[in-house]
Amino acid sequence: MPEVVALGETMVLMNPETSGPLRYVHRFTKQIGGAESNLCIGVVRLGHTAGWISRLGDDELGRFVLHSIRGEGVDTSRVSFDPEAPTAIMFKERRELGDTKVYYYRRYSAASLMTPDDLDEEYIASAKFLHLSGITPALSVSCHETVLAAMEMARRLGVKISFDPNLRLRLWSPAEARRVLVDLMGKADIVFPGVGEAEVLLGTRDPVAIADQILSRGASLVAVKLGAEGAYIADKEGNRFRSPGFPIERVVDPVGAGDAFAAGFLVGLLRNYPLDECARLANAVGAFAVTVTGDIEGLPTNEELAAFLGEREDIDR
Amino acid sequence: MPEVVALGETMVLMNPETSGPLRYVHRFTKQIGGAESNLCIGVVRLGHTAGWISRLGDDELGRFVLHSIRGEGVDTSRVSFDPEAPTAIMFKERRELGDTKVYYYRRYSAASLMTPDDLDEEYIASAKFLHLSGITPALSVSCHETVLAAMEMARRLGVKISFDPNLRLRLWSPAEARRVLVDLMGKADIVFPGVGEAEVLLGTRDPVAIADQILSRGASLVAVKLGAEGAYIADKEGNRFRSPGFPIERVVDPVGAGDAFAAGFLVGLLRNYPLDECARLANAVGAFAVTVTGDIEGLPTNEELAAFLGEREDIDR
Amino acid sequence: MPEVVALGETMVLMNPETSGPLRYVHRFTKQIGGAESNLCIGVVRLGHTAGWISRLGDDELGRFVLHSIRGEGVDTSRVSFDPEAPTAIMFKERRELGDTKVYYYRRYSAASLMTPDDLDEEYIASAKFLHLSGITPALSVSCHETVLAAMEMARRLGVKISFDPNLRLRLWSPAEARRVLVDLMGKADIVFPGVGEAEVLLGTRDPVAIADQILSRGASLVAVKLGAEGAYIADKEGNRFRSPGFPIERVVDPVGAGDAFAAGFLVGLLRNYPLDECARLANAVGAFAVTVTGDIEGLPTNEELAAFLGEREDIDR
Amino acid sequence: MPEVVALGETMVLMNPETSGPLRYVHRFTKQIGGAESNLCIGVVRLGHTAGWISRLGDDELGRFVLHSIRGEGVDTSRVSFDPEAPTAIMFKERRELGDTKVYYYRRYSAASLMTPDDLDEEYIASAKFLHLSGITPALSVSCHETVLAAMEMARRLGVKISFDPNLRLRLWSPAEARRVLVDLMGKADIVFPGVGEAEVLLGTRDPVAIADQILSRGASLVAVKLGAEGAYIADKEGNRFRSPGFPIERVVDPVGAGDAFAAGFLVGLLRNYPLDECARLANAVGAFAVTVTGDIEGLPTNEELAAFLGEREDIDR
Amino acid sequence: MPEVVALGETMVLMNPETSGPLRYVHRFTKQIGGAESNLCIGVVRLGHTAGWISRLGDDELGRFVLHSIRGEGVDTSRVSFDPEAPTAIMFKERRELGDTKVYYYRRYSAASLMTPDDLDEEYIASAKFLHLSGITPALSVSCHETVLAAMEMARRLGVKISFDPNLRLRLWSPAEARRVLVDLMGKADIVFPGVGEAEVLLGTRDPVAIADQILSRGASLVAVKLGAEGAYIADKEGNRFRSPGFPIERVVDPVGAGDAFAAGFLVGLLRNYPLDECARLANAVGAFAVTVTGDIEGLPTNEELAAFLGEREDIDR
Amino acid sequence: MPEVVALGETMVLMNPETSGPLRYVHRFTKQIGGAESNLCIGVVRLGHTAGWISRLGDDELGRFVLHSIRGEGVDTSRVSFDPEAPTAIMFKERRELGDTKVYYYRRYSAASLMTPDDLDEEYIASAKFLHLSGITPALSVSCHETVLAAMEMARRLGVKISFDPNLRLRLWSPAEARRVLVDLMGKADIVFPGVGEAEVLLGTRDPVAIADQILSRGASLVAVKLGAEGAYIADKEGNRFRSPGFPIERVVDPVGAGDAFAAGFLVGLLRNYPLDECARLANAVGAFAVTVTGDIEGLPTNEELAAFLGEREDIDR
Repeated sequence: MPEVVALGETMVLMNPETSGPLRYVHRFTKQIGGAESNLCIGVVRLGHTAGWISRLGDDELGRFVLHSIRGEGVDTSRVSFDPEAPTAIMFKERRELGDTKVYYYRRYSAASLMTPDDLDEEYIASAKFLHLSGITPALSVSCHETVLAAMEMARRLGVKISFDPNLRLRLWSPAEARRVLVDLMGKADIVFPGVGEAEVLLGTRDPVAIADQILSRGASLVAVKLGAEGAYIADKEGNRFRSPGFPIERVVDPVGAGDAFAAGFLVGLLRNYPLDECARLANAVGAFAVTVTGDIEGLPTNEELAAFLGEREDIDR
Repeated sequence: MPEVVALGETMVLMNPETSGPLRYVHRFTKQIGGAESNLCIGVVRLGHTAGWISRLGDDELGRFVLHSIRGEGVDTSRVSFDPEAPTAIMFKERRELGDTKVYYYRRYSAASLMTPDDLDEEYIASAKFLHLSGITPALSVSCHETVLAAMEMARRLGVKISFDPNLRLRLWSPAEARRVLVDLMGKADIVFPGVGEAEVLLGTRDPVAIADQILSRGASLVAVKLGAEGAYIADKEGNRFRSPGFPIERVVDPVGAGDAFAAGFLVGLLRNYPLDECARLANAVGAFAVTVTGDIEGLPTNEELAAFLGEREDIDR
Repeated sequence: MPEVVALGETMVLMNPETSGPLRYVHRFTKQIGGAESNLCIGVVRLGHTAGWISRLGDDELGRFVLHSIRGEGVDTSRVSFDPEAPTAIMFKERRELGDTKVYYYRRYSAASLMTPDDLDEEYIASAKFLHLSGITPALSVSCHETVLAAMEMARRLGVKISFDPNLRLRLWSPAEARRVLVDLMGKADIVFPGVGEAEVLLGTRDPVAIADQILSRGASLVAVKLGAEGAYIADKEGNRFRSPGFPIERVVDPVGAGDAFAAGFLVGLLRNYPLDECARLANAVGAFAVTVTGDIEGLPTNEELAAFLGEREDIDR
Repeated sequence: MPEVVALGETMVLMNPETSGPLRYVHRFTKQIGGAESNLCIGVVRLGHTAGWISRLGDDELGRFVLHSIRGEGVDTSRVSFDPEAPTAIMFKERRELGDTKVYYYRRYSAASLMTPDDLDEEYIASAKFLHLSGITPALSVSCHETVLAAMEMARRLGVKISFDPNLRLRLWSPAEARRVLVDLMGKADIVFPGVGEAEVLLGTRDPVAIADQILSRGASLVAVKLGAEGAYIADKEGNRFRSPGFPIERVVDPVGAGDAFAAGFLVGLLRNYPLDECARLANAVGAFAVTVTGDIEGLPTNEELAAFLGEREDIDR
Repeated sequence: MPEVVALGETMVLMNPETSGPLRYVHRFTKQIGGAESNLCIGVVRLGHTAGWISRLGDDELGRFVLHSIRGEGVDTSRVSFDPEAPTAIMFKERRELGDTKVYYYRRYSAASLMTPDDLDEEYIASAKFLHLSGITPALSVSCHETVLAAMEMARRLGVKISFDPNLRLRLWSPAEARRVLVDLMGKADIVFPGVGEAEVLLGTRDPVAIADQILSRGASLVAVKLGAEGAYIADKEGNRFRSPGFPIERVVDPVGAGDAFAAGFLVGLLRNYPLDECARLANAVGAFAVTVTGDIEGLPTNEELAAFLGEREDIDR
Repeated sequence: MPEVVALGETMVLMNPETSGPLRYVHRFTKQIGGAESNLCIGVVRLGHTAGWISRLGDDELGRFVLHSIRGEGVDTSRVSFDPEAPTAIMFKERRELGDTKVYYYRRYSAASLMTPDDLDEEYIASAKFLHLSGITPALSVSCHETVLAAMEMARRLGVKISFDPNLRLRLWSPAEARRVLVDLMGKADIVFPGVGEAEVLLGTRDPVAIADQILSRGASLVAVKLGAEGAYIADKEGNRFRSPGFPIERVVDPVGAGDAFAAGFLVGLLRNYPLDECARLANAVGAFAVTVTGDIEGLPTNEELAAFLGEREDIDR
């Protein structure tokens, strides 16, 4: 039974072969992308166990997602296949001027049909952490219910709840998102907000104020992600500090860095590291994630992390 | 103002780089596919004018579809962009054993939101033929209404209605399809049924019986498509004959052959060819369409048709 | 009838898949490239109308050029096909050390056979601007005559003449180019010289001296392109100012930036913007063009320009 | 614990993008290939469980093999990583004239270092079938010992031994191969020889004589593979019959068909099918394998098999 | 000094990645193509020596051609580089319906500027055979003069002249071609006509009549190429026979087969094979050439030929 | 007979299409890589002659290596083919974080079987320089003997010995490498150490100390490579100076820079340049090599070097 259990949707990611407007791109490479499965893969890459709960379309693209995540060593025994609804798709568009854009084909996807019945109490009970994101409640009413039920179940079973707001304004309005996500942040034990989304959800970009608000709503630990600058950590016991980020020469694609950060942080907690070590690990794992165009390809092993964090010289070809 | 006007949805077609199950395909090429725009392109390739009415997502994929069809010389002045709904997508899967499969991402697409308001009476009035397919009424209630309104408008304006049942059982049940499509076949002037779909819709694979049924419901001309064997033609005046197909050594992809057939037939009618010449032209254009993997790449010019139908020898390299 | 009409050659651009000497490049992607059609596409992308006059080979590559430009929404009704001469080709070579090189296959191309008979007086008469470049007179004697005839026709009809010297030393000697292009600059209303070509043609790299010389020869407005530093503007009324450029983090390919600049400037004039607004628009459009490897893929829409020029933040994925 | 356990080497298969001599092929696609893992994947694809025992290099290519096989749902819990020796590689060369050739880079590979210590008695004890091939003993002395130890262990534990000679003359001489493989065929319960390899090993291409010889040496069941013609089956109880093959219109790549055949046969036995049903299933699964260029991409699911064996018509696009 | 010396143009061949009209092909692969260098490579592949005389553009594409041919082991010491004129280019278009088309960019190419001064008497004197084709005289007047001078030189030096008419109607009119090529056939020792070109040049498709005409004009040996049916051989000594071709299951691309045939024939003569053995070798080498899409990739080694002509069985994977 | 003769192994280099861990890379491009053949190509590119002595597998990959190096104009007349052992392979892995990694498949390769019998005394005698690297002695005992025999032969014949330590810790332990390479550096005339490898071999990173140690062991000239900072030169005559490197904006791949440096240096010596000119040339050639992903594609011609070292402006497109 896995140490970390996460629930959410994973899409097939159609990655354009060249940057620029998609109308001019002829070829796309098929990959996968999903905040929660990214986190699971990050945890497994570091030698721990993780399980991913989801629903996929009973189609070739769904099989592809399953094979990819199972191939990484994530437990997929609780993934079900929907006979009707399709696996979701996402097109990426990389532009030199301006941000990466995405085009979703995820309405009425298989994962959006998840219900509380998809939750296996015994499976969740055996985990140390249940990880959820703010994307899932935006997918459908039944997905929102499933997140709430999972949180309630975890709390009852004594499993710590980890939550990443992952605000997606393509999926709902700021007002709706605020209403739901602020509520969910308060129900979680550990929260991983970014400053951009905090501004929309909590009305402030100040890390201290962000942490204060979330802790005051019931969370025990907040790790505010500050991008290249690292993170600001605060907990109920009064520990508060800034953990610096690792400078990366060339950021290839920032997508997936937040998931990697959370994966590193949870692994630190699983290893009973002190908080500052958890944050250092989280920042380092996040740094790896921005060096490749896919979401998961850059997630490091322990050996790669050690080489990155330690000293290293390589004269060998 | 174009001689042929067609209304329908065109999707972005993600064409796999290799055959076999999609889960193992890494790369896809972006093309377009849509029965009605295929027909328009076929008509234009043969030197006549055609216009395509549709709605696209106001996104890069929608621009790609517009550019492609406009680039072919089809009039797209009546295509509108929907600010919310996306452009539809279709994945193809080619298997050596068994048929080509498709996976649709077209629910709630921009085109499925078409309404009778998308119809420009003046535009339709100026055409010789209005072409519709049985795919459009399957997309949504408002699409069905749009097809009915277009037929009513054409009839009122004295524009001939051309109709291809194009049965898609992924989009609706046989019973639903039967109810709607049999009605529409009766409202059309020219109908292009295939024997497979006729079996579902009319309960017979016999070309004569198919033609009888459709003529008796009100159509003036029926061209039953018989695949490699050509077509069976029947009209209200009592003309009835079989027109043989053209043998093709290697069928690369049969998709799009029906649209090509109808394009050829309508061009024959535009040129006031006798019926048997129309059928011969239709069969020849259909033969070209099966020799490439895309829907439209194989559609012939007049010169290519002449070379194919005439004699030719080429010693030059 | 289009607001801007341009005349010139567009080539098929064989773009290497990797940088480095072409002898080691295995694959090439087919695109299009032509200074005047680039400008037309830039104008259309910003919501105005443009028409492109040219001659293409009656071959597959010529059809490709036509489809591409027509697909962009440029009017191609005055493009003719030459039954004998081929469509021109250009290979690009991108090197990390040193400049991008090009290899032309354009001698005796279809476009080089253009004559004054290719000019449709009624078509040009309806435009606000006729745009010409210094490439066309270098292609052949009859092309030079065509440019002179077009200028004469525009002047007679009261259509403003826009001219970009576009010095190409692969096509003719400095002396020949100087003789012809200095003459043409004097016959134009608006001239878009770069400092490099001005040095060859006018013997100075000083923007003020460049503008002085051109104005003194009869032009009413000169916009000297200064690359990343923007532009120097001067007109007959005595307006004179420098308009700063927009810093671009990573210049992918500078080719096409001049055409984009001119497109932006003409659009500003079409909108009756004050001169400094025209220059700002021109600089912004030029900035977009350098961020992609093709000539036209980066040309911005009004929405993209607004986002670039305004403020923008995107937390959504 | 899996129903079928197999032991053997899986290589990274570098598949050329085009046919013809490799010296002219510029690009290769990375896949996997290994007789025993092919069989495991075939078994899992049909809804049963399988486990693969092997050793891989502790390198990126080894991780790729592990991810691929685990992704397919095969149990890989008994795969170990060798810190020194590399994962084996194989280049394929497809020629229109003559057979597909392979180039091995498998000497001193990680898998060639397997020893009897790699065998987990408890794991093997829980299986219904242990599958081995004649490739493994050719890899090294310790691999030969491992095969002998596995057979001895299976016999002791009452697990049926399935054996495919898989003669590879690139790996050893005919004389050596004969000495070892004839011995191993006699120690197995079920043997899957081909007629080509039987000629080298047993001196005859006659299916009846092949079966007689193998049964007389101790096996209980022999399925002689006859390629497109199907198989000849004989067992100790005196059952003897020929099972016809399924005609395939276009054989894309025959490699992997034997593994697929054996997978189908073992699944039939797991389901307690009568022998002729086992053979029919085996022939059908083998037919699927030849329709794709990779070894495993074509292996069918139960649904695909049913569609292939039953009747089917598809009018839907 | 090489045994066979050939003179002619080699082009860069842009090979489309997919079949169908070029306007829809996005990618092209760079190869080389030239009748005379094909022949040289065929000769070298079979273990003999060959030298290729030509002129290339002093550009990257010229370097590519030189590297490719020199890499094959052909002597290129007499190839010169023209500082002005470019290396010629050819686009191929493969269609399922109808023949492969080519689009040339070879007018005013470097090779078309060859003159008799490009001929090195000492170099030619040392050869057994000088091979020329009917393409070269079609390139330019000076190329025609060069061919005549080379023939005169060879005759004077006692070097046998081998000639392949290689009629290319894209390069000149039938009348012009007839006038020049009939003359050149008469000046050669060995002539390799095809029946299609013979019809244009000599007015007959009858192999016997073709041979009669050419022998009567002065040649000593004629090998009429009959495609898949082999060849008809006739010489001045009165030897006359038909040599059957080798059936090839799937002809991928017939281009280059004639050059391969001639290479095989000349190698037979170099080895002093009897005429029927020369023809058998020529037919076999020709058969190999049609199995790949490029011109030279399929040319066989002695080992491959032996395997093809002899018996072969391969059970090894 | 070539001016520079080098002996060593060249591998087929499988270059990943994308950066990141190889497990996620689907496609690889085939190139070549070998320190000594890189040097030969560098020498030839600059207009001098070079010959490469090696052994290759008698397989398609060996033919590819031969064709590539011969195509570059390097003399390959002393390359032999081993009927049994394969051509070596190397996979590259490019990571954004951390260095490029390589995975070798070169144990028991054809080149590792070289013996002193592969040395042709007459061939070496005619050269000005014999170039060897520290990779060859690491391949096998017989390769080490071959290097020693070649050095002894060159010394006897009065041919200058050039030596690049090229420490490869994947091939042997630091202790072994130190024992062998320090000995070989002492036996050479010209040595090209890098500071990283010097630290392992000589215990110091100080250029002065490195040069002192090597000169004291018998070498006449030492060029210590300092990467982007250039080189430190010292000789027995007491000349000592630092030669600055050329700043490169974007280092694409540093592999091959050392070979390019040595090629430039030897060419300088062949031209009897003063030492500081040799070093300047070496640094410039090295700068070119880092601008492409392959080892040899970036090596400059004299023209490219002149343009790089001189002044240059290019207004032409």
